[in-house]
Amino acid sequence: MRILFENARILTLDEADHEYVNGSLLVENGRIAYVGPAKAFDAVDRRVDAGGDVLMPGFANAHTHVPMTLLRGVGSDLPLQSWLEDAVWPLEDKLTDEMIHWGTMLGIAEMLRFGVTSFLDMYAYEDVIAKAVLDSGIRAALSRGMMDGNGNGESGMAEARELIENWEGEGDGRIRTMVAPHAIYTCSGAYLRRARDLADRYKVPIHIHLSETYKEWEDCRKEHGTSPVRYLQDLGMLDVPVVAAHVVAVDDRDLDILAEKGVCAVHNPTSNLKLASGFAPVPDMLQKGIRVALGTDGAASNNNLSLWEEMNLAALIHKGESLDPTVLPVREVLRMATVEGAAAMGYDKVGALKKGNDADMILVDISGPHYQPIRNVMSHLVYAGQGLDVRMTMVQGRILMENGEYKTIDFDKVVHESARAAAQLDS
Amino acid sequence: MRILFENARILTLDEADHEYVNGSLLVENGRIAYVGPAKAFDAVDRRVDAGGDVLMPGFANAHTHVPMTLLRGVGSDLPLQSWLEDAVWPLEDKLTDEMIHWGTMLGIAEMLRFGVTSFLDMYAYEDVIAKAVLDSGIRAALSRGMMDGNGNGESGMAEARELIENWEGEGDGRIRTMVAPHAIYTCSGAYLRRARDLADRYKVPIHIHLSETYKEWEDCRKEHGTSPVRYLQDLGMLDVPVVAAHVVAVDDRDLDILAEKGVCAVHNPTSNLKLASGFAPVPDMLQKGIRVALGTDGAASNNNLSLWEEMNLAALIHKGESLDPTVLPVREVLRMATVEGAAAMGYDKVGALKKGNDADMILVDISGPHYQPIRNVMSHLVYAGQGLDVRMTMVQGRILMENGEYKTIDFDKVVHESARAAAQLDS
Ligand SMILES: [Zn+2]
Ligand SMILES: [Zn+2]
Repeated sequence: MRILFENARILTLDEADHEYVNGSLLVENGRIAYVGPAKAFDAVDRRVDAGGDVLMPGFANAHTHVPMTLLRGVGSDLPLQSWLEDAVWPLEDKLTDEMIHWGTMLGIAEMLRFGVTSFLDMYAYEDVIAKAVLDSGIRAALSRGMMDGNGNGESGMAEARELIENWEGEGDGRIRTMVAPHAIYTCSGAYLRRARDLADRYKVPIHIHLSETYKEWEDCRKEHGTSPVRYLQDLGMLDVPVVAAHVVAVDDRDLDILAEKGVCAVHNPTSNLKLASGFAPVPDMLQKGIRVALGTDGAASNNNLSLWEEMNLAALIHKGESLDPTVLPVREVLRMATVEGAAAMGYDKVGALKKGNDADMILVDISGPHYQPIRNVMSHLVYAGQGLDVRMTMVQGRILMENGEYKTIDFDKVVHESARAAAQLDS
Repeated sequence: MRILFENARILTLDEADHEYVNGSLLVENGRIAYVGPAKAFDAVDRRVDAGGDVLMPGFANAHTHVPMTLLRGVGSDLPLQSWLEDAVWPLEDKLTDEMIHWGTMLGIAEMLRFGVTSFLDMYAYEDVIAKAVLDSGIRAALSRGMMDGNGNGESGMAEARELIENWEGEGDGRIRTMVAPHAIYTCSGAYLRRARDLADRYKVPIHIHLSETYKEWEDCRKEHGTSPVRYLQDLGMLDVPVVAAHVVAVDDRDLDILAEKGVCAVHNPTSNLKLASGFAPVPDMLQKGIRVALGTDGAASNNNLSLWEEMNLAALIHKGESLDPTVLPVREVLRMATVEGAAAMGYDKVGALKKGNDADMILVDISGPHYQPIRNVMSHLVYAGQGLDVRMTMVQGRILMENGEYKTIDFDKVVHESARAAAQLDS
């Protein structure tokens, strides 16, 4: 199978940072076989005339809880405790396998529509989620959120191990797995250590919510006499690869440790603002060489799974917060939303558009008024782009969404079934 | 001319705050003749089956510089002084009447595409802009930005007066005018007083940039011994109706004055963040009863003219800044983006969808994945909506954009001519 893209404005987002104004890109057996200036190829199965549109790496949503898409809009604008206890948890208690399936399909449909080609998930029911990933063709790193504070520590640990054994590398390597102790305040120290040992044994990364709120920081000081980051370090948790979501409440020493240990921080600006957690010190992280990816968190604290708004927020809020308009320039933000996220999930041949990498990429329509005059495309994408500008989403060389049509998903059925599930939940 | 909308989810956004799930709305001679539950009407010229989509008031962009759309993406991520002096000003010096025309048409096309039905502008060349407003069918309050610091005080004042005399009330009342002394740091005290007298004489409001940056506040303290707000009060400027853009650097006393004087503050979150001005204290403003509208500022400090991103930012950043997730709830944000803006511009029969008001409204497609399940539509609009969801934009009962097609604008020509103008500017 050979697909040729012609007349594309290609943003490679690799170290060389090429921008080919009239570029060609050849996909062969799911991989990028050529990317560069216009070039002719014969014997291709399909030619896509990009018409000057942008061809770029797909987005990586590096922290989410995909079945929660079913809870979109629940408890909007409530205080955090009330949002969790009165709005979210009562609904989560009612979730069935079937609802998880439809919520996941809805989330995947949304992500494909807006150009997300991979996501890092933390939830339960990972078998249901893995099947949806397999069938839909998207790429995902899955992790079973686990905690022992609620008495379900053993079953969570067992399911985490089964997830790795059953799903790691499935779907031609599209599915990866991680071990996900939920957070330091829901897991005991002993349980966290066991999670680390499990990750170490299978050579998969840890995925954890870390220092999401100032309350978490304060509570940790009281209980453990140190910060959440240093507490994890003391437990030896940072000696294996770690993807840490949020990282809002951290001091300078914490950041030095994260840099030294090579922890990847996932910035979730919408969630941090909507739940009033505050501003993660992303400019400091970048200055210290910490790798930062972007995530949406669950739809219940966002309300969407599109990386476009996360890019826009990331580029804007830290300028306002630091009173420095030069922090988080657009190229850096585009890399955080794409190649950094793919790297965080452990995909080494996914991300930048370069020869040999998997063809995980999107075509973005830049004919709309918000891209005119076409002068500084990266800036337009970050500050003016919208999810609906995405006209094609491809994973591993396979077109999954084109012009709003899904190739692997019965979207009408997803809408119908998720409405039915929501009605059941809300009743 | 009678147009009937049926099967619409109508958000009236008036005080009664109706949401009709299966509503009808009848437009007759540019006005709303009926809005409410499903109702049959005969002898209509057109029936629009909304198919369950949202019908709501159009957006009001309450502070912009529309010809600057031609400068979109210029000087992205530069420090403020360098952005102005090295990127923006050299280009503005080269602008011709023709470029102003195409930049304005591009900005209007963008606004109509994303559901903006009215805008408040401050720039020069207001004759050119007024003609574009007249021809395109959009609604606008126009003001001639004027200053005496650059030696052009008299011509600016004269053009401001001509603008009012020539254009106030034109286009069946679509065009309004204001007097726009640019800012306290570009106008002398005597000039500001003359601007106030001009506004008072013609009974039009003042439109001014006010306390945009902490630097403006500090400089004002040094030069005038008081804050920008109190300086304006001392000059008697606040005794006429005032629309103040930005209002970032203010103290509690300033806010009390703005509340007492009935000044409308226009919040421009993207611009304030992108230029690193900081966070306007919007939750405090609302608590003190200050009326707040939303604006994009010019495209050069944004990069777009869509109110969707301003709504999203306004709803999110103040939650993060105040660490309180209950501030700026979605209904309040939707009203700021629509009815409050229209009121700020001086339109008294425009805004909420109620009988007798002008039919300035939009139809928003909520069939996309990001609105599913349809549970809390206001929350979905603010936190997940996108400009491209707008399927119809109507001003004074006239459809100006439908399904991406313009009824009054030759969009291909606008794209071509604005690209040509940008090439000339950048060369
Ligand atoms: Zn999370
Ligand atoms: Zn302005």
